[in-house]
Amino acid sequence: MPQMDLPLEELRRYLPDREEPDDFDAFWAETLAEARTHDRPPEFHPYDACLSEVDVFDVRFPGFGGDPVAGWLLVPASATGPLPCVVGFLGYGGGRGFPYEWLTWPAAGYVHLLMDTRGQGGSLQPGATGDPYGSSGPSSPGMVTRGIQDPADYYYRRVFTDAVRAVDAARAHPSVDPARIIVSGGSQGGGIALAAAALADDVGAALVNQPSLCHYRRALHVVEGNAYREIWTYLRTHREAVEPVFRTLSYFDGVNFAARATAPALFSAGLMDDICPPSTVFAAYNHYAGEKDIRLWPYNRHEGGGYYQDLEQLRFLRSLPLTAS
Amino acid sequence: MPQMDLPLEELRRYLPDREEPDDFDAFWAETLAEARTHDRPPEFHPYDACLSEVDVFDVRFPGFGGDPVAGWLLVPASATGPLPCVVGFLGYGGGRGFPYEWLTWPAAGYVHLLMDTRGQGGSLQPGATGDPYGSSGPSSPGMVTRGIQDPADYYYRRVFTDAVRAVDAARAHPSVDPARIIVSGGSQGGGIALAAAALADDVGAALVNQPSLCHYRRALHVVEGNAYREIWTYLRTHREAVEPVFRTLSYFDGVNFAARATAPALFSAGLMDDICPPSTVFAAYNHYAGEKDIRLWPYNRHEGGGYYQDLEQLRFLRSLPLTAS
Amino acid sequence: MPQMDLPLEELRRYLPDREEPDDFDAFWAETLAEARTHDRPPEFHPYDACLSEVDVFDVRFPGFGGDPVAGWLLVPASATGPLPCVVGFLGYGGGRGFPYEWLTWPAAGYVHLLMDTRGQGGSLQPGATGDPYGSSGPSSPGMVTRGIQDPADYYYRRVFTDAVRAVDAARAHPSVDPARIIVSGGSQGGGIALAAAALADDVGAALVNQPSLCHYRRALHVVEGNAYREIWTYLRTHREAVEPVFRTLSYFDGVNFAARATAPALFSAGLMDDICPPSTVFAAYNHYAGEKDIRLWPYNRHEGGGYYQDLEQLRFLRSLPLTAS
Amino acid sequence: MPQMDLPLEELRRYLPDREEPDDFDAFWAETLAEARTHDRPPEFHPYDACLSEVDVFDVRFPGFGGDPVAGWLLVPASATGPLPCVVGFLGYGGGRGFPYEWLTWPAAGYVHLLMDTRGQGGSLQPGATGDPYGSSGPSSPGMVTRGIQDPADYYYRRVFTDAVRAVDAARAHPSVDPARIIVSGGSQGGGIALAAAALADDVGAALVNQPSLCHYRRALHVVEGNAYREIWTYLRTHREAVEPVFRTLSYFDGVNFAARATAPALFSAGLMDDICPPSTVFAAYNHYAGEKDIRLWPYNRHEGGGYYQDLEQLRFLRSLPLTAS
Amino acid sequence: MPQMDLPLEELRRYLPDREEPDDFDAFWAETLAEARTHDRPPEFHPYDACLSEVDVFDVRFPGFGGDPVAGWLLVPASATGPLPCVVGFLGYGGGRGFPYEWLTWPAAGYVHLLMDTRGQGGSLQPGATGDPYGSSGPSSPGMVTRGIQDPADYYYRRVFTDAVRAVDAARAHPSVDPARIIVSGGSQGGGIALAAAALADDVGAALVNQPSLCHYRRALHVVEGNAYREIWTYLRTHREAVEPVFRTLSYFDGVNFAARATAPALFSAGLMDDICPPSTVFAAYNHYAGEKDIRLWPYNRHEGGGYYQDLEQLRFLRSLPLTAS
Amino acid sequence: MPQMDLPLEELRRYLPDREEPDDFDAFWAETLAEARTHDRPPEFHPYDACLSEVDVFDVRFPGFGGDPVAGWLLVPASATGPLPCVVGFLGYGGGRGFPYEWLTWPAAGYVHLLMDTRGQGGSLQPGATGDPYGSSGPSSPGMVTRGIQDPADYYYRRVFTDAVRAVDAARAHPSVDPARIIVSGGSQGGGIALAAAALADDVGAALVNQPSLCHYRRALHVVEGNAYREIWTYLRTHREAVEPVFRTLSYFDGVNFAARATAPALFSAGLMDDICPPSTVFAAYNHYAGEKDIRLWPYNRHEGGGYYQDLEQLRFLRSLPLTAS
Repeated sequence: MPQMDLPLEELRRYLPDREEPDDFDAFWAETLAEARTHDRPPEFHPYDACLSEVDVFDVRFPGFGGDPVAGWLLVPASATGPLPCVVGFLGYGGGRGFPYEWLTWPAAGYVHLLMDTRGQGGSLQPGATGDPYGSSGPSSPGMVTRGIQDPADYYYRRVFTDAVRAVDAARAHPSVDPARIIVSGGSQGGGIALAAAALADDVGAALVNQPSLCHYRRALHVVEGNAYREIWTYLRTHREAVEPVFRTLSYFDGVNFAARATAPALFSAGLMDDICPPSTVFAAYNHYAGEKDIRLWPYNRHEGGGYYQDLEQLRFLRSLPLTAS
Repeated sequence: MPQMDLPLEELRRYLPDREEPDDFDAFWAETLAEARTHDRPPEFHPYDACLSEVDVFDVRFPGFGGDPVAGWLLVPASATGPLPCVVGFLGYGGGRGFPYEWLTWPAAGYVHLLMDTRGQGGSLQPGATGDPYGSSGPSSPGMVTRGIQDPADYYYRRVFTDAVRAVDAARAHPSVDPARIIVSGGSQGGGIALAAAALADDVGAALVNQPSLCHYRRALHVVEGNAYREIWTYLRTHREAVEPVFRTLSYFDGVNFAARATAPALFSAGLMDDICPPSTVFAAYNHYAGEKDIRLWPYNRHEGGGYYQDLEQLRFLRSLPLTAS
Repeated sequence: MPQMDLPLEELRRYLPDREEPDDFDAFWAETLAEARTHDRPPEFHPYDACLSEVDVFDVRFPGFGGDPVAGWLLVPASATGPLPCVVGFLGYGGGRGFPYEWLTWPAAGYVHLLMDTRGQGGSLQPGATGDPYGSSGPSSPGMVTRGIQDPADYYYRRVFTDAVRAVDAARAHPSVDPARIIVSGGSQGGGIALAAAALADDVGAALVNQPSLCHYRRALHVVEGNAYREIWTYLRTHREAVEPVFRTLSYFDGVNFAARATAPALFSAGLMDDICPPSTVFAAYNHYAGEKDIRLWPYNRHEGGGYYQDLEQLRFLRSLPLTAS
Repeated sequence: MPQMDLPLEELRRYLPDREEPDDFDAFWAETLAEARTHDRPPEFHPYDACLSEVDVFDVRFPGFGGDPVAGWLLVPASATGPLPCVVGFLGYGGGRGFPYEWLTWPAAGYVHLLMDTRGQGGSLQPGATGDPYGSSGPSSPGMVTRGIQDPADYYYRRVFTDAVRAVDAARAHPSVDPARIIVSGGSQGGGIALAAAALADDVGAALVNQPSLCHYRRALHVVEGNAYREIWTYLRTHREAVEPVFRTLSYFDGVNFAARATAPALFSAGLMDDICPPSTVFAAYNHYAGEKDIRLWPYNRHEGGGYYQDLEQLRFLRSLPLTAS
Repeated sequence: MPQMDLPLEELRRYLPDREEPDDFDAFWAETLAEARTHDRPPEFHPYDACLSEVDVFDVRFPGFGGDPVAGWLLVPASATGPLPCVVGFLGYGGGRGFPYEWLTWPAAGYVHLLMDTRGQGGSLQPGATGDPYGSSGPSSPGMVTRGIQDPADYYYRRVFTDAVRAVDAARAHPSVDPARIIVSGGSQGGGIALAAAALADDVGAALVNQPSLCHYRRALHVVEGNAYREIWTYLRTHREAVEPVFRTLSYFDGVNFAARATAPALFSAGLMDDICPPSTVFAAYNHYAGEKDIRLWPYNRHEGGGYYQDLEQLRFLRSLPLTAS
Repeated sequence: MPQMDLPLEELRRYLPDREEPDDFDAFWAETLAEARTHDRPPEFHPYDACLSEVDVFDVRFPGFGGDPVAGWLLVPASATGPLPCVVGFLGYGGGRGFPYEWLTWPAAGYVHLLMDTRGQGGSLQPGATGDPYGSSGPSSPGMVTRGIQDPADYYYRRVFTDAVRAVDAARAHPSVDPARIIVSGGSQGGGIALAAAALADDVGAALVNQPSLCHYRRALHVVEGNAYREIWTYLRTHREAVEPVFRTLSYFDGVNFAARATAPALFSAGLMDDICPPSTVFAAYNHYAGEKDIRLWPYNRHEGGGYYQDLEQLRFLRSLPLTAS
C-alpha cells in the first residue's frame, strides 16, 4: 500500500516523547574530547580526476580514536578566497566513490568535503575507510548492530564522532571559511548530519533529507527496510536483548540530536517512504530546536525529492544570511 | 547464474553476420535530409540552476520532423573560447532530469549537450520532450514497439534522427568547437551514440557503454530485460509478426551502425550484464569500423564500470588528438 | 493483507465528494460533436474463424478524429431479426484478440460488438488498432499518462470517444436493434463502459465489473497496481505536476460519469481487489444516477466474480424490460 | 534466460529412449477392463446457462471405480443430426468452471464434452468432482504425488481411466457421432489427451498443446514448474524414493502413450516454455505413432499459441477426412 | 509492515464471539467413540538410529477409522520407571522425519511420542503415514480443503482423532506414566494440541505455540499464509461456498477447543507473526478454560520464540505439580 | 533451472588446478603458533538447560589472539570414561543458539563441542562471541569480505584459527578422549571443518557436508548465493581489487586444505545445490588427501541430505577404527 504511515495532518503534529538517557550529553562530550586528543592535522592530497574546473583532494583526517577517515575535498578551481563548505555524509552501504558523484556543490561555488563512512563502501560505490574496531558481541549482517550491546562500543559512536571531526577537518583547509559550514546528508547521511548539527560547533546550516537513525521504536513497527531491518533481525534472534538494544540506541537517536541542534535547517520527506517512514522524520523535525522548514514529496518513496530537493537546498542556502568570517 | 553469456575468449572473436536491408543507407540518408529541412536554429535559454561555475542553458532544437527536442547545454563558466563538446544520450526510461546530474563534462572542461529522449521522461528522471507521433498499430507498454510494424513509423527512427540533429545543434552554439564533437551514452544511450557516430558528420570520438539496441535476435534469446523485454512481449502476443519485426529492427541495429562508424571509440561491457548481454556488445564492437578499445568489467551486471568507466573515458579523450578547428 | 480497503459497511455508504471541472459537460459535448463530423459508415468485413454458428465480422469504425478503430462483431448465425447488442470494452493491455474469446454473448442470443482499445494490444492478446497521436509531453511506460498534461491531449479522451462511436457503429449494423444497446466491461473496460453509459445516447443497460479509472486520488493512496501505478510513477517523477495531473484526470473520472448515467446497471466488486480497490468502485456505484445493483465477491481480488458474474449478468439482462424498437 | 532448452534443430531430432515397464499394456488393459465393469449409463442433465444457441448439459459419467465424474456437454442448438465431438481435458488445478469457457467447439459446430479432473477444481475455476481415494503414503501438496508409491494407487491411473470413460460417455449421447471423436487438451490436459488417444478405441484425432506428464526425468532437470515441481519436492524430501517414483511414473509417461497412439494429431509447443519444456514435448511428438504435425511458437512460454493455436486446430480438423459413421 | 495485527493492549482483551455449532460436542463424542472401536494395540518396533542414549521405537497406532498412523517413541535409555510423556504434533507440511529432530524431550527425561500427520510428509521432512480417504468434492492444493464440504469428511476430523488416539497409544507403552501426559505443538501442531487438550482424557498440560487452525474468519482477513491461504484459494474459486465452508470449520476451530480444555497451558505468540496472526492466537488463549500463561515475542514472525520457548516450556513443566500415577 | 552445474560424470573427475600461494604452509604455521601463545585453559561452566540426560557446559576457550570464543560442550550424563568427541562448526549467519539444537551427538554417545562463529550469531540463532577486530578497508555487508584486502587481516584467518583451538579445547576436557576427535560441519561449517582437518593435529575423522569456502573462482561464476554473493558484491564495487581478492582467498580455499587433510572423511553434496554448487564440493573432495567417501543427493539443493546424512555419518563413524587412547 503506497501510503503506509500516518496522514499528513497527524504527521505535522507528531511529537512523540523522547527516549533519552540522563548522561546523553556527558556521553558525547567525553567521546568528542577523547577524539580530539588525536589532533594531527588532516591530509589533503591532490588527486587527478581529469577535472580542470575542480581541484580534487583525497582527504585523510583523524576520526574516532584518531583512525584515518577518507573523504574527498572538492574546491571550485575559480576560488580566490575562503568559501562556504558543505560537509556531506553518505547513505547506507556505499563509500565515497569517485569525485564525479559530488560535483554539485563545487559547481555552485561551495567547497565540498564528502566523508567516507567507515567500514562501509564494499557495495554500490567503493569506499576507502576501514573500521578497525570489532565488537565484543555478535551482530547481524551489516554495520547497524555492531557493538549494539554497549553504547561505548556501538558503531555509530565512531561514525558520529568522525562526522564532527570531518567538520573540524573542513575548517582546517585554507579554501574553507570556518564560519560557514553546512552539514548535509540523506537517509543514513541525514541521521549523521543531525548528529553533526548537534555535536559540532557553530554549524551554519543543516540539510537533512529523509533521515534514517531516528525514532527507532516506531520505525521498527512500521517498516522493514534497510538499516532498521538489521536491528529487527537482531531482535528477532536475541529475544532477550530488546530493552538493552533500545537503551544503546537512545544515545544515537536523531530525535535527541534534533532537540539540541540550532542551525537553520531544511528537511525533506517522502510521504510514501517505506525505508525511512515519514513519522520518524517528523519526530526529528518537530523536535528540531533551530529554525526549520521541510519539503514534502507526497508521491515519493525513499528517493524523496531527488534533484528537485537539490534545487530547494541551493535556494535555501542562497536565502540564508550565512555570514563570512 | 551470474555468468550467463559466452566465455570471454569467444566474446572476443564473436562476429555474427549482420542482418541489414539493402536500402539501409538510403533509408537513413532520406530520413536525415527530410529532418534537415526543418532548419530553424536551436534555442538556448539561460536557466538558473543556482550554479556559479557552470552556465546552464535549457535547449530546444528541431529534431525529427522539426519537433522541439529538449536538452541541457552546460558550459564551464571559465570558458573563454570554443571547447570540445560531448553530446550525451540517455538510458531507457528517464528524461534529462536536472543539470546536477550532468556536471562531469563541464567540470572536466568540456561543453556538454545532453539530449532528452522524446516521449520518455515520465519515470526515474523527468523529461521535457513529447513524441507527437502515434502509431498505426498496437504496441506493448513502453516505447520500443511503437511503430514497429514499419521502419518509417518506428520510434527509434525519430530518436536517432534527433541524435544527429543534437550534434548539429551543439555545433551551433558559440562555446562549441564544431570540429571536436564526442558522442556518448550507455545502455539505450549507447545504442543512440552508435547511431549518431555512424550518421552524424565528422564525429571526433564515441563513448559507448554497454549499448542496448544491438543484435536483437541474440538479445532476445539470452536475456529478458528492459527494452528487449518489450519486443519479446510483442512477439509473444503477435505471433504472426516475428519476421516483419526483425525486418524493421534491421534498420535500427547498432551492429549495422557500428560497421559504418569511423571515429575512435571507447566501449565498455559488464561480463555479467543481463540487460545488455556482452555478446550483443561484442557484436557491435567487433564490427565497429573505427579505431576502438573496450574496457571489460568481469563481475559487473548492467552497471558496468560505473564511475570507473568515467575516469577511463576522461583519460581516453585526453589521449586522443582531437584537433581544435 | 487480504483485506486492505474499508470494511463493507463503510463501503456501502462511501460517497466522497466529486472532483469535477465546471466545463466537464461542455468538454465532452464538444469532443463528441467533433468526432461525429467523421461520419463515414463503419465497415463490417466477414471473417472466417471456422465458426459455423456465429457470423464474425472484422469491424473498422471511425473513432476519435475519424481514426479507424478495430473490433469484432459477432452475430448468432440463427438470427432472423434485429437483436439486442452488447458493446464490450477491454481490460488494460490486451487487444481484441480472436473471436473465440467473445462467444458468450452470441451464444446467449445477443449480438456482440467488441471494441479494440487503440494503441494497446501489444501484450496478452493481439490488437489491431493504432493510436496515431503522440503527446507533447513525457510519459511513463504504458498509455495512462500519455498526454496527461492536457485534457484535450489525454489518451482516454480518444478512448472514451471511440467507445461512444462504437455504440454508434453497433447501431449501424442491420442485425442490431438500436433500441437495445448494453455497454459492458471490466477493469479498464468497466471505466470505459461508465463513460459510454454517460456519453452515448439511450443506452439500455450497463454492466460494470471492478472498474478502473475511478476516484484516482483514493486509488493512488491504497493500491499500486496496474493503470494507477503508471500515474504514480509519473507523479513520483514529475513532482511539480501533482495538481495539473489530477485536474486532467477530473475530466475522465468514472465517478463523474456515474453521476450522469441513467441506464439500469449491474456492478460488481472484489472486496479484496488490490488493483481496483472496492472503495473506488463504491465511489462510482454510490454516485451512479440510474437504477443499480452490485454483486460483491468477498474473497476475490481483481478477478472479481469471474464466470459467476457472467451468469449474474445474463440473468440481470433477462430480468430487464429491454424493449425492442 | 528466455531460451533454456535445446535449440530447435536438436529438438526436431530429439528421440530419447523410452522408459517403459514390461507390463505397461497389461496394466492398462486390466485397469480399463475393471473400470468398464461399472457400466451404468452417463447422465446428461439440462443446465440453464442462459444460452439460447447452445444446449448445455451437466454431465455425470462413471469413471475409474465407477466414481461419478462431472463434465459439461455442449451441443449447438442448431444440431439436427450426430456431430463430431471434441472430448476436452483440463490443465492442472482448475475444474470445469462454467460453460462460458467452452464455447468455441459448439460455435464451430462440434459437440464438446469437457471432463472435470477429479479432486482438482479448488483453485482457478471451480470443479465438481471429488477423488474418493486417499493414499497409503505421504504426498507433497497437490495431486501429482498422491499414491506415487505404487502404480495401482497413483492418482493419474484414475484420471487417465476417467478420460477413456469420458470418450465412452460422449459416444453415448445421441447428438454425438461415435465415429468422430477428437481428444484435446493443453498442459496436463495434453498429457491426458495423449493417454486417451492411446487407450480409448478408435479416436479420430488428437489435439495436444504443450503437454505435461511427459518424459519426467528430463523435465525434472530443466524446469521447476507446476506439476513437475511437486515430484521434485517429493524427491527432495524422500531421498530414498527416487527410483521407485520413476518406476511408478513410467506407467504414466506421455512418451509411452504417444508411441501407442495412431490417430492424426496436431501438437504445439512454446519454444520458451519453462513449465512444459519443449524437449519433453518433442520427446512425445517424435515418438508419436500416428500422422502428426506440430505448430511451434518461438517466443512463447507456457501460453504457447493461445488462440492462434485454436484457429490452427479448427483448420486442422477441417482438413481431416473425419468420416461420419 | 512488521506489525500488521492489533496492538498488544487490544490483543490482551480480544475475546471474539465463538462460532460454534450446537452439535459440536456430540459430533466429537461420536467421532471418538467410533475411532475407539478400532482397538488393536499400538505397535512399537525398535529402530536403530545409532543412538545409545535414547531407545527409539517406530510406532504404528490405530487412528481415525483404525488407520495405521506412524510416529516415533523416544525413551531415555536411563529410564527405570514410568516417565511423563510429551505427545507432540507437527507443523504443516512435513512428516515425522528422523528421530534426531526430536531429542529434546528424552534429553530432558521425558518420553516423547511424536505423531506423524496423515497424508502430509511429502515436503520438508519425510512422513510415513498415508491418508486413505479421498473426498467427494474438489479441493485446492494441500490438505486444508480436503473434504471441507462436510464436517464428517473433513481432513482435520481424521487428524484430530488421530491426536486423541496418539495420547491413548502413549499411555499404552510401559515407559509412560499415563497420569502425566503433556500435549504439545506449534503452528498446525498447536492447533492439533488444542484439540487434543480438549478431546483427550485427563491431559496433564498443554504447550501451544503460535497455533494455526484458530478463528478462521479473522485469519482470512489479516493474513494470506500457509494453511489459511488454501482456504482463501478455495473461497476465491468456489464463491458459492463461503458459509458452508465456515460452518464446516466451526467444528474444527481451536477457539472452541480452547473453551473446553482445562489442563494448565503455556501458549506463545510472535507479535509480528504473519502466518498465524496474534489476534487469532489470543482468541484461543483468552477463551482457554484452564490455568494458562503466554509468552510473547514482540519482534518475531512465525518462528515465535524458537529455542527460547523450548526453555520456557521445560521450566513451565518443571514448575507444574504433575503427579505421578 | 534445477540442475545448473556440471553433469555427475564430469563432477566425479573434476580436479581443477589448485590456486595456492607459495607460503601457504608458512602462513598457517605462523598463525597457529602465535595463537597458541595464548595458552590459558578453556573454561567449562555448567549450564542449566533443564536436561537431565546431558551435561551441558557453556564453553569459553582462547581462539585467535587469545580472544574468548564461546561454545557448548555436551556430555552424555551416562558417561563414565573418556569418549570420542565431535567438534562442530556452524553454517553462515547463526550462532551457537541453544543446546537443544545439538543433541544428536550426545544421544549417540559422543561428546560434542559446538563452536560459535565469532562475530556472527546476530541472525537465525543467537551467538555469544564477538570479533574484536575491525578491518583497515571497506567491506560489503556480512563477514566474508572483512579484511579481504590482506590475508593477515582476513576474517577467516581468525575463524579457522579458532577452529584449531576448539580442537585443542575439546582435548582439554576430562570427558574427551584426545585420540578420538572428529571435525564436522556443513556449508560454512564444512569449509571450517576442512581447514581444521588440515591444520589441527591428529584429527580422527572429518564430516563435511556441502562445504562453502571452496574454489572461489568457479563458485562466483555459477552461483550468486550467500557467502559467495558478498565477495561478488565486493568485486562489483571494487573493480580494481579482483586479483588481490583472489590472492587473499587462496590462503583460505577449502581445496587447498583438502589437499593437506589425511583423516578419513565423509563428504556429501546436493547435486542441485545453488548455494555451494557441486563442482566446488567435488573440487575439494577430489583433492582430498585422506580416505574418503561421498554421499550424493541428486534432487537436493543446499539442504543436501538433511537427517538422512546424519544417519550416514553415524554409520560412517561406527565403521571407523577410531582407537581409544
